[in-house]
Amino acid sequence: MDLQPVKGTRDFFPEQMRQRNWLFDVWRKVSLQSGFEEYDTCVLEHEELYIRKAGDEISQQLYSFEDKSGRRLSLRPEMTPSLARMILQHQRSLPMPVRWFSIPQCFRYERMTKGRRREHFQWNADIIGQSGVTAEAEILLLLINACREMGLTDAEFRIFLNDRRILNSILEKIEVPPNLHDSVLVIMDKRDKVSPESFSEMLVESGMNSSQVEQLKEHLAIPELESLSKLLPDCEGITALQELSELIKISGFSSYIQFDVSIVRGLSYYTGPVFEMNHPQKSHRAICGGGRYDSLLSTYGGETIPAVGFGFGDVVILDVLEEHGRSPDLSRKLDFTIIPFDSTQVGTALKLAGDLRTLGWSVECNFGLRKMKKALQQASESGAERALLLFPEELERNEVVVRDMKLREQSSLQLEKLLQMSPEEQT
Amino acid sequence: MDLQPVKGTRDFFPEQMRQRNWLFDVWRKVSLQSGFEEYDTCVLEHEELYIRKAGDEISQQLYSFEDKSGRRLSLRPEMTPSLARMILQHQRSLPMPVRWFSIPQCFRYERMTKGRRREHFQWNADIIGQSGVTAEAEILLLLINACREMGLTDAEFRIFLNDRRILNSILEKIEVPPNLHDSVLVIMDKRDKVSPESFSEMLVESGMNSSQVEQLKEHLAIPELESLSKLLPDCEGITALQELSELIKISGFSSYIQFDVSIVRGLSYYTGPVFEMNHPQKSHRAICGGGRYDSLLSTYGGETIPAVGFGFGDVVILDVLEEHGRSPDLSRKLDFTIIPFDSTQVGTALKLAGDLRTLGWSVECNFGLRKMKKALQQASESGAERALLLFPEELERNEVVVRDMKLREQSSLQLEKLLQMSPEEQT
Repeated sequence: MDLQPVKGTRDFFPEQMRQRNWLFDVWRKVSLQSGFEEYDTCVLEHEELYIRKAGDEISQQLYSFEDKSGRRLSLRPEMTPSLARMILQHQRSLPMPVRWFSIPQCFRYERMTKGRRREHFQWNADIIGQSGVTAEAEILLLLINACREMGLTDAEFRIFLNDRRILNSILEKIEVPPNLHDSVLVIMDKRDKVSPESFSEMLVESGMNSSQVEQLKEHLAIPELESLSKLLPDCEGITALQELSELIKISGFSSYIQFDVSIVRGLSYYTGPVFEMNHPQKSHRAICGGGRYDSLLSTYGGETIPAVGFGFGDVVILDVLEEHGRSPDLSRKLDFTIIPFDSTQVGTALKLAGDLRTLGWSVECNFGLRKMKKALQQASESGAERALLLFPEELERNEVVVRDMKLREQSSLQLEKLLQMSPEEQT
Repeated sequence: MDLQPVKGTRDFFPEQMRQRNWLFDVWRKVSLQSGFEEYDTCVLEHEELYIRKAGDEISQQLYSFEDKSGRRLSLRPEMTPSLARMILQHQRSLPMPVRWFSIPQCFRYERMTKGRRREHFQWNADIIGQSGVTAEAEILLLLINACREMGLTDAEFRIFLNDRRILNSILEKIEVPPNLHDSVLVIMDKRDKVSPESFSEMLVESGMNSSQVEQLKEHLAIPELESLSKLLPDCEGITALQELSELIKISGFSSYIQFDVSIVRGLSYYTGPVFEMNHPQKSHRAICGGGRYDSLLSTYGGETIPAVGFGFGDVVILDVLEEHGRSPDLSRKLDFTIIPFDSTQVGTALKLAGDLRTLGWSVECNFGLRKMKKALQQASESGAERALLLFPEELERNEVVVRDMKLREQSSLQLEKLLQMSPEEQT
């Protein structure tokens, strides 16, 4: 019997689970504070939801199968199609805009590398039904909030911003035929992962001529939005990014964002601003990515509804926090361990544990009936603040021995007094 | 495009999600208070984990498939095998006993009826490495705690208790050959779902003679543990249940438990006490079920390790709470909606929202730029306590108009004063 989890998937032992819960709690807290509501769907979806015309890698990495009735099903590789499906179900009755978030587990069958497994949990937040860059501004501020809540500073992360319309304008300007745009974008998205020579070769193979390739590279080397705006005077994407930057500036968070014409994002459904979060020197994999996808809902047969959102995985961010020494202290916490002297106090221990829990305390019983020294060692390892020792003599006087596990001091206490304490008064 | 979720699975819109989160929070709270630690595994497991010799229904209801490398994988139908796998991985280093809980989503491909879908979330809590009925006592008290936390009383739920060894003793006493025991237990588990005639027929078909069937029925009609103990004087299962009942009695929760010789539980791995929670008149499907499974870990190639636990699904309990009028009020909560007068205050709104969130408030911005009446109606529907109206004139004096959405009263307030308030002071 193979005791390991399926290749590319993880077991969460209590220590890892506390870390995961901590991260999810941060995501939930900042989402709710920003007025986002939580939703979820099932990890199983109809396969057709992910079959798109464009050459998205994601469609080739599906965990798909047939159920006992011959339905083609997939484990979701991303959340946005499920979100679109839910919105379209209740399009008429939902009060637009909706601000929704979710923390789904997503699956992709792909080669495993650092920071990439076959499953991850991915915080998704989206604003549906709000056009204009105010939605982008809200989404970026939510991201910045989340990172600040985790203790990261503007020296440790940056959001790199671009707009798909800028990329399209460049391709139009250098006269790349429109039918090549999609495949050229897919290649541009891979630029960081290949050598400059391979990049040029791939572009030529896609149908561009070498002069176009050189011109494209020149445009991609322009660091400032202002310089680019002179070359592309009527580009809507540039105006949008200028407005968006202004809103982020007023909010006081300019130092967290940066224009970067090389950002593409792999998914074919983006239509406007796109962004990626990374270290300011881009020394990690992208921590999170997203953008505007105004036409996705219409491809599923609905109206065109403006939409913007992101996905933020759990794997890379935990590596990043570790690297920057920002991992929180997540040792186990427990108020009391109750230790009976022998089996005759087991019932009393259960009763006392119940009474203390009703008051709000966390209480573990140690029923191993081992030597006191061993039991106290276990209590200490479990993170208990105090041990309650049930000795027959003290119990006859309605007393227990309370031991402070840190100070290693103990004294008798009337049961009645013990049960008058509550966790709130202690803190 | 089919907008519905896969048959038998659920979408969680924000309203259902609040309900789910409430339930999960109750489960987490009582688990942590009782010293249980949370763990999780991936919903994808190796299929072999669920292939058991005995005729468990569960093995025939798997969502199974082959991945791109030819691995046979399944969506987990229950959590216990995954738990066993994790324990066996770290058997030497884990400080026994471990008290662990989890809230996994589980999948079974089966016919859909009320309270039964093809997926559900199932709270699991287990104690591994503690022999004797103290572990059962802890597990039952945890269940009782959870139900009380949800507002249910002893008139609304009952835990029905039996022991597999009692059933085996009865079968031995009436001389049913040991090789028939497993299949007879599977039939006994279905007794509530078939007519008395079908029940007898099924037993005869399994290989029992009609005299044995009559004797079995007589034993199953005995309501009291005491009466049964006279017929089965040396049965370990009876001694165990007597000890367990005594511990629950000392803890003050006798009225929540009841002996019931008809309880079997479908899974083949139970070896000792088994239990089911239901309405005192058994008017629901079982709300939860569990028991002792001391030999499961050894079937996976490990040592024999004592283990006891339960699974508690999310579907039936929510129906039960609804039926008893115990569903909590879970309307959306929001502290502020910020409404700019026109587009020139959008930046100010974002800045103000950020400042208020830093103080701990939940804040939504309304950037629809609709008429004030419409915007206030939206604020009211979103559950906001207060609206902040950004009028140009007030803003010039560094003031905002604060509107109490319930009292429908509004007045101007210095921005500086607004930002001195914090959520804690308000409650």
